[in-house]
Amino acid sequence: MRLVTFDAGAGARTGVVLDETGASILDLTAASGGAAPFATMLALIAAWPEVKAQVTDWAAAPPAAAMVTGAKLLAPIPRPAKNVFCVGRNYQAHINEGLKARGAPPAPPPPAPEFFTKPPTAVIGPDEPSLHFPINDAMDYEVELALIIGAPGRDIPAAKAFDHIFGYTIGNDVTGRRLQRKHGQWFKGKGLDASCPLGPWIVTADALDPSDLQLTMVVNGEPRQDSRTSNMIFPIPFLIESLSGGLTLEPGDIILTGTPHGVGYAMDPPRYLKAGDVMEASVEGIGTLRTPVADA
Amino acid sequence: MRLVTFDAGAGARTGVVLDETGASILDLTAASGGAAPFATMLALIAAWPEVKAQVTDWAAAPPAAAMVTGAKLLAPIPRPAKNVFCVGRNYQAHINEGLKARGAPPAPPPPAPEFFTKPPTAVIGPDEPSLHFPINDAMDYEVELALIIGAPGRDIPAAKAFDHIFGYTIGNDVTGRRLQRKHGQWFKGKGLDASCPLGPWIVTADALDPSDLQLTMVVNGEPRQDSRTSNMIFPIPFLIESLSGGLTLEPGDIILTGTPHGVGYAMDPPRYLKAGDVMEASVEGIGTLRTPVADA
Repeated sequence: MRLVTFDAGAGARTGVVLDETGASILDLTAASGGAAPFATMLALIAAWPEVKAQVTDWAAAPPAAAMVTGAKLLAPIPRPAKNVFCVGRNYQAHINEGLKARGAPPAPPPPAPEFFTKPPTAVIGPDEPSLHFPINDAMDYEVELALIIGAPGRDIPAAKAFDHIFGYTIGNDVTGRRLQRKHGQWFKGKGLDASCPLGPWIVTADALDPSDLQLTMVVNGEPRQDSRTSNMIFPIPFLIESLSGGLTLEPGDIILTGTPHGVGYAMDPPRYLKAGDVMEASVEGIGTLRTPVADA
Repeated sequence: MRLVTFDAGAGARTGVVLDETGASILDLTAASGGAAPFATMLALIAAWPEVKAQVTDWAAAPPAAAMVTGAKLLAPIPRPAKNVFCVGRNYQAHINEGLKARGAPPAPPPPAPEFFTKPPTAVIGPDEPSLHFPINDAMDYEVELALIIGAPGRDIPAAKAFDHIFGYTIGNDVTGRRLQRKHGQWFKGKGLDASCPLGPWIVTADALDPSDLQLTMVVNGEPRQDSRTSNMIFPIPFLIESLSGGLTLEPGDIILTGTPHGVGYAMDPPRYLKAGDVMEASVEGIGTLRTPVADA
């Protein structure tokens, strides 16, 4: 099932996408008569074990009065309750291209996942512009598979990791490369406003095997990144085990799982983003997340 | 004024501390008849320009029916709406002690503030135990001055920084030293549950000049850290300008401003925390934040 947050003129609502394009949506607020578990995506995720069967029934035979067309899609979780968790260098070809760009030879992967975060103020939805700030003179893209946590947990063993995943969406970890390096820790270069496009919807975990999905980034129609999630150095179960060690994951938490090779800063010469560019981040089985670039 | 979140048996409420110890509190829910701007500290901070005069009047002549004694103090913001912003190496003597512990000579300060974060699940209040996890075999303390943002803003110039500060509290950036290093980025070693004691209350900005305050850490009665905020490499106005560049700060955002020298890992031999230890973090003009250590 594809779950979405949309605005058809009555503010942010949750829904089920019924076609391939997002043009046809089952409005869960209308279908439920405004019941609280359907009011926001965070509420829906928390209530999912209780309401999944009902939503499945509605999606199979949508009540006509609950159908919406032509709505604006928002980020599936427009305002996360904490920063988005992110994973650094998780694809070897991306590590090597970064080293090459700095004149260094290929190196082994890091000994453990490199976690950092992006704040809720960074999250934007499909077709919403990512902002190019004057201080960000090296703006770059990073297509990533994003995990959405369902059942909460701490010290989750890898073998149980998929029990805690609610679903998947697409993330674009828009980055200020020089800020990332200048400030030592990556947060400053990763945390700018409108630097975390998410969407266009969440595919529930029962509908997608995430282990070998193609992920691509196209900028202004030109292919830039093209790899598969099977190339992750630290696969999803390992990431969940590592991140949740001594740290409680909560329903609605978002985890970006790292980007493959093909980023702009590793090109010769580097090719950074500017106002007017259009990024299209795609993950097989989910869809395409389109993000124009605009001056702040 | 000292603003507090407390629990006297009716759940979390906001109040004004009327003595030096926190034993006597004006209950703002009782004083206001349960009005929404006083329901939580985040609501109170957002409404402060409108309600400050009223709260000042109540504190000057407390209604007897709104007085509370012996309440349990919670973190001033028990559940922040995003991760706590933190600043890395911001005191030269702390940088040098870390280098010395690794056998390296003193080095100049970093070229720009090193920002990272701790998630809302890390926040705990006064006297609440910080947890010692089996994966954290090098648990350490860090006393810090914490800023609370009031007026929102982006691209805030240093000269305007204090216009955006609501108040100050004490933070203890409890750290897993080996996790911090093993995972490259600092988040994993900084983000564990119960690793961010905050409190005991917020001193409003009009009542404290933060530029030269003593800050100390005492462990089991033994002095460990003792420095002054005037030793910050990047002073508060610079931190606000740097962090808010392209990033919107919001009411209730929390910024830990870095720790001085005297941490456990830099001692010879290193002295890490264990269950039963008691940390007392103090900042002049604010008070003392006491945190016992317990096994998870």
